[in-house]
Amino acid sequence: MKIGIIGTGMVGQAIGGKLIEQGQDVMFGTRDVETTLARTEPDGFGNPPFSQWIKGQPQAKVGAFPEAAAHGEIIFNVTAGVASLAALGMAGRENLSGKTLIDIANPLDFSQGFPPSLAVCNTDSLGEQIQKAFPEAKVVKALNTMSALVMANPASVPGDHNVFLSGNDAEAKEQVAALLQDWFGWQPQQIVDLGDITAARGTEMLLPIWLRLFGMFQHPFFNFHVAVGASPR
Amino acid sequence: MKIGIIGTGMVGQAIGGKLIEQGQDVMFGTRDVETTLARTEPDGFGNPPFSQWIKGQPQAKVGAFPEAAAHGEIIFNVTAGVASLAALGMAGRENLSGKTLIDIANPLDFSQGFPPSLAVCNTDSLGEQIQKAFPEAKVVKALNTMSALVMANPASVPGDHNVFLSGNDAEAKEQVAALLQDWFGWQPQQIVDLGDITAARGTEMLLPIWLRLFGMFQHPFFNFHVAVGASPR
Repeated sequence: MKIGIIGTGMVGQAIGGKLIEQGQDVMFGTRDVETTLARTEPDGFGNPPFSQWIKGQPQAKVGAFPEAAAHGEIIFNVTAGVASLAALGMAGRENLSGKTLIDIANPLDFSQGFPPSLAVCNTDSLGEQIQKAFPEAKVVKALNTMSALVMANPASVPGDHNVFLSGNDAEAKEQVAALLQDWFGWQPQQIVDLGDITAARGTEMLLPIWLRLFGMFQHPFFNFHVAVGASPR
Repeated sequence: MKIGIIGTGMVGQAIGGKLIEQGQDVMFGTRDVETTLARTEPDGFGNPPFSQWIKGQPQAKVGAFPEAAAHGEIIFNVTAGVASLAALGMAGRENLSGKTLIDIANPLDFSQGFPPSLAVCNTDSLGEQIQKAFPEAKVVKALNTMSALVMANPASVPGDHNVFLSGNDAEAKEQVAALLQDWFGWQPQQIVDLGDITAARGTEMLLPIWLRLFGMFQHPFFNFHVAVGASPR
C-alpha cells in the first residue's frame, strides 16, 4: 500500500520503519527536503537526525509535504502537534481528501519548558481541529497515548494494554483497526473504539499522566490498559 | 480512627460505608444538617438521598462541615469538585491544619451539560488549588480516577489495575497507601505514587476518557492499569 507519513521525527521513523520492513511503499513528507536531509544534529530528545536514519532505509521515499500526501492512500500525521495544522495545510486539502488520516500527534506545548502543557484540551482537541480544518479527510485519532517504540511493537509491553481509536467515520476506524493488527501486531481485544473524534480530548489528555509515568520509569515501555469487570445487572 | 468525610454524595457513602463496616468513627459533614436530612429526592444521578442511606448506618455521625472536619484525624474531600474549595473553606482551615486530607474530588463542570468539562486542568488542578488554599493540610489526591464503587472495593474489577497518589508530603502518602490497603483491600503493587501534588493534573485529566468508557460499558466496574515492561538498558 502507498503510505504518506507527514513528519520525520521519532514517531515517523518508528511507524515508517515498520511499514518499510513489510514492503509498504512509504513516502515521508517534510517541509523542505534539502534542509531535512542536510540536518546532522540530533533532535530535541537526543535521537539521531532523520538524515542519518533514512540512509538505512533505501526503499523509502522522501518528498515535500504535498508529494507525500499525494503519494499516500493512507496518511499518518506524525508532526509535532503544535505544527500539525500548518503542516497538513501545506500538504494540501486536495491531497488529503477522501483518505484515512491517522492522527498520532499530541498538542504538546513546550514553550514554558518541561513538563509541556497541552496547547488545546478539555473542550476541544487537536484531532477535532484537524477534522474541522480538513472535513473531506477521515481523521482517526490513534496511537497517541504511548511511546513510538510501543506503537509499532505492542509486544514490547507485556500483559494487557490498549490502543484507542476516535473518529467520525466508522469504516475508516475499521480500516485502521485492521491495519494496526496486520502491520504492528495489535490484537483485536487490545483495540478500543471510543466513538467519534471528540473522544480525542480524552486520549490527548492522557499525556500529562503519561509524561509523569515516563519520568518515574525512565523508559518508554509502558502503556495504559482498561481493566473491565462484568456489569452487576 | 476518627474520620471526617466532607460531602454526603455517592462517593462519601461508598467510602464512609466501608469505614463504618470496619468500626471506624465516621462523621459526615454537610453544609446544613437539617436540610440534608430532610431531602427525600434522589441525587442528580438517580441515587437515593443521603437521608435515606444514613438510616441504615446508626453508628455514623452527621454534622456541619466544621464539626466533621474537627472530628476527623483524617479528612476525605468527597464534595463536587466545583464546590470543594467553598466547602473546605466552611470546614475551616484550623480544622484541617496538620491533617492528611484525601482529595477524591474531580472539578467536573456540568454547566454546559453532558459530558462535563473540567473547571480547571492542564496548567493547574483542583488538588493543587486545595493544597494552595490550605497549606497546613497535607493534601493527597487519590482514588479520583475510578467509580466510587471501585474505590472501596477494588476486587470488583478483575485483574491488574491501579490507584494513583499525588501529594507533597511523603509521610501522608505513605499513610494513605497503608489505609488503602487496610480499609479497602488495595494491594501494594496496585498503588502508584506519582510524585508531588502537580501530578493531580494528570489524574484529574483522566476523567474525559473515563466518562467516555463509562458511556461505552454502561457500568462503572472498570479501572485504569499501567502495564510496564522492562527497561532495555
